[in-house]
Amino acid sequence: MSYNSVVIRMELIHAEVNFGEVASAIAKAGGDITSIDVIRSGPDFSVRDITVQVGDSNETEVIQALKELPGTKLINVSDRTFLAHLGGKISIQPTLSIKNRDDLSRVYTPGVARVCTAIHENPRKAFSLTIKRNTVAVISDGTAVLGLGDIGPHAAAPVMEGKAMLFKQLADVDAFPICLDTKDTEEIIRTIQAISPIFGGINLEDISSPRCFEIETRLAETLDIPVFHDDQHGTAVVVIAGLINALKVVGKRMEHIRVVVNGIGAAGVSICKMLLAAGVTRLVPVDREGAIVYGGSYELPMWDWLSKQPQVEAKPCSLKEAIVGADVFIGVSRGGLLQAEDVQKMAPDSIVFAMANPHPEIDPQQALPHVRVFATGRSDYPNQINNVLVFPGIFRGTLDCRARTINEPMKLAAARAIASVVYDNELNEQYIIPSIFNEQVVSKVRHAVIEAAILTGVARRIPPDFR
Amino acid sequence: MSYNSVVIRMELIHAEVNFGEVASAIAKAGGDITSIDVIRSGPDFSVRDITVQVGDSNETEVIQALKELPGTKLINVSDRTFLAHLGGKISIQPTLSIKNRDDLSRVYTPGVARVCTAIHENPRKAFSLTIKRNTVAVISDGTAVLGLGDIGPHAAAPVMEGKAMLFKQLADVDAFPICLDTKDTEEIIRTIQAISPIFGGINLEDISSPRCFEIETRLAETLDIPVFHDDQHGTAVVVIAGLINALKVVGKRMEHIRVVVNGIGAAGVSICKMLLAAGVTRLVPVDREGAIVYGGSYELPMWDWLSKQPQVEAKPCSLKEAIVGADVFIGVSRGGLLQAEDVQKMAPDSIVFAMANPHPEIDPQQALPHVRVFATGRSDYPNQINNVLVFPGIFRGTLDCRARTINEPMKLAAARAIASVVYDNELNEQYIIPSIFNEQVVSKVRHAVIEAAILTGVARRIPPDFR
Repeated sequence: MSYNSVVIRMELIHAEVNFGEVASAIAKAGGDITSIDVIRSGPDFSVRDITVQVGDSNETEVIQALKELPGTKLINVSDRTFLAHLGGKISIQPTLSIKNRDDLSRVYTPGVARVCTAIHENPRKAFSLTIKRNTVAVISDGTAVLGLGDIGPHAAAPVMEGKAMLFKQLADVDAFPICLDTKDTEEIIRTIQAISPIFGGINLEDISSPRCFEIETRLAETLDIPVFHDDQHGTAVVVIAGLINALKVVGKRMEHIRVVVNGIGAAGVSICKMLLAAGVTRLVPVDREGAIVYGGSYELPMWDWLSKQPQVEAKPCSLKEAIVGADVFIGVSRGGLLQAEDVQKMAPDSIVFAMANPHPEIDPQQALPHVRVFATGRSDYPNQINNVLVFPGIFRGTLDCRARTINEPMKLAAARAIASVVYDNELNEQYIIPSIFNEQVVSKVRHAVIEAAILTGVARRIPPDFR
Repeated sequence: MSYNSVVIRMELIHAEVNFGEVASAIAKAGGDITSIDVIRSGPDFSVRDITVQVGDSNETEVIQALKELPGTKLINVSDRTFLAHLGGKISIQPTLSIKNRDDLSRVYTPGVARVCTAIHENPRKAFSLTIKRNTVAVISDGTAVLGLGDIGPHAAAPVMEGKAMLFKQLADVDAFPICLDTKDTEEIIRTIQAISPIFGGINLEDISSPRCFEIETRLAETLDIPVFHDDQHGTAVVVIAGLINALKVVGKRMEHIRVVVNGIGAAGVSICKMLLAAGVTRLVPVDREGAIVYGGSYELPMWDWLSKQPQVEAKPCSLKEAIVGADVFIGVSRGGLLQAEDVQKMAPDSIVFAMANPHPEIDPQQALPHVRVFATGRSDYPNQINNVLVFPGIFRGTLDCRARTINEPMKLAAARAIASVVYDNELNEQYIIPSIFNEQVVSKVRHAVIEAAILTGVARRIPPDFR
């Protein structure tokens, strides 16, 4: 069940009803009052805004109960989630105000012409004299939005705007949402190339697999600014961060574990690649048709790449067969694929990351008794694997050193930095991943990413604190 | 000559030099001190920032004079215009801050999914639940930037950012700059179509002629949000506004005047169209090869259209011939085409708008003695014809009524609104156009544009103050 807040504006006639009666009617219908504001008050009546937390099922019951209560008049019911979205969630602000003609001639014509000329003569100056320095595009074609699928560019906008909010609040990155009215791979690539000059980085988002691989690869090859498909790499980075800490908790090492990854789409491929980069020697990638095996032959280029890696097991099997004896299960697939008896067959001290949304691959209540470390993508259980931990710091670091790309060492550095925020003396089965509100996350990720960019030769600028 | 401020940071050794000597050295070299800040001060020396206004020619002389002055050490010379551009001129701000997990689940996953679903079911809701409601793209391919020509997308960015600042400050419109890395007409059209879903309007800017016509027309046909090429229509609207008032000053009427328009590119075509819409009956459009005449045949579709309008004169002639006896000359071409003897041959009480930048079609000193009303695009003479008067209010009105287009009646309404800001008892030869800082401009343009949109059936929403 998911929860939701509604704001109920109602009039109360003092002679006929008191607030206690209203409160008890709400409670009886299953609502939970979280705040009350008096809007108007007279001798005979008052108007109040009552914020009530309700579940999926009892919103109507709460409203009905209030409608039936004598002495009250329901004026309006507003949904707090919808209220938060009214008019959109970001705005554009000038960095300085134009108070007179003199100011105007500096930031606009005629003065601006000298700045334009300076950039024309040396395009690198765009990084210091325009918003390129700090601006990222958050781009989606709306084909794989949350768990909702292909809902189109207009409906994808609230997610992209939310991401822009997080970029700014957590890492002071200016991010602007771009929602594409095309699903054609070539047209998406051309469009993003065409609009790239104003941006210092491209965050691809919610683009369905397998098109997302081609789009990201081709853009990374042709643009000189970093391109990062968050659904692939953001998820992979935070999974590796969580796994680093989970292995510490159970006392196992990356080189010794056997890992099953289920769901070899956008996120799954990137997770497999990062696991190999992190030192995993026994990997079983599984999709709907069963395990992708070493020596096999596959149409999808990414699956075919996996089948050529010697760390990938050669024995064909189903998911339920693969999981027997595994140390780690990582699911980025769909809900309810596994039962208690499946995870019981894993190796002792097993680690399960069941990240399908909104329903994990195995019901947490079934898994918890049999698994040593359990994580999901949800916020209502411990160990939320949330890529909000990744993209703000990765882009902060990348922009600060003007990296031309985000390479594998930079991603691995980010994962290790996230893991390091949880100190060894804090680490336990319930706490392998820091909160996204932990202020150390962005600064540690930034630092690690810049260091890795400098070492791998992709930084075009050394930030002052690294000199 | 254009002016520019520099900030000179220098050390003064007290025993060797006093500030009076510094000030007089600057003055002698042609600089004008506008402010002084003491940065550090010790018993033997002080460090000061001296802001000096300098002309094109004497900046080096001022610096040289200070370098030669004993007892001083030049630390740094910063250009205030460049300082104002450091890091770009706009930022993205969240409309609310995410303080806890509850806030996060409202603006991002999982709560945002309900908002996405609502828009997916009814795409019109994008106008209320996303930034589309108030967001305009300022788009250029960098081919015709100011008087600088084809300087490319990176170098165009400072102008687009400056425009975004003005949009916000003057009309509370959120505008985001998009600089296109392509000059291909078809690719520009496809790119803008592809990125359009997040925007409530498209402001095209500094795209060279004749491609700009095709691009604007095709986009206007295919998109359901307004598309406005400011170089065409912004200029045309403010020219018509100025002309309405200039005609009042000289006591002539639109139907009776003979108008010469020189330079039939982006702005010139739109000016001709609006003159005809405003009631002009005798029009002579002139380009490099001479007058475009009624009954002629031209390759450019826009010129051909003009040659079919009965108000266009049929007699072939050069610019110098055309201007003889004209009541009004409107120049959107290049500097120094006309001399005093040319404007002397115009009809009595002549009106000259010489808007070539930075050098007007006729030198103001030559024109002023012979012309009754004179206007330029420059801020250092009275009557500046500045399209900053137009785009903020036009888009404010268009967004507020969700107009699907900006049609001719809306543009004419905007011109009449701008003209109306100057009251009859204020009107004179030196004051036909309001200042861009006049607060009435945006609100009057907005009101007129919404009214015209409602009357012509293109408004999709009636704003509360129009109900």
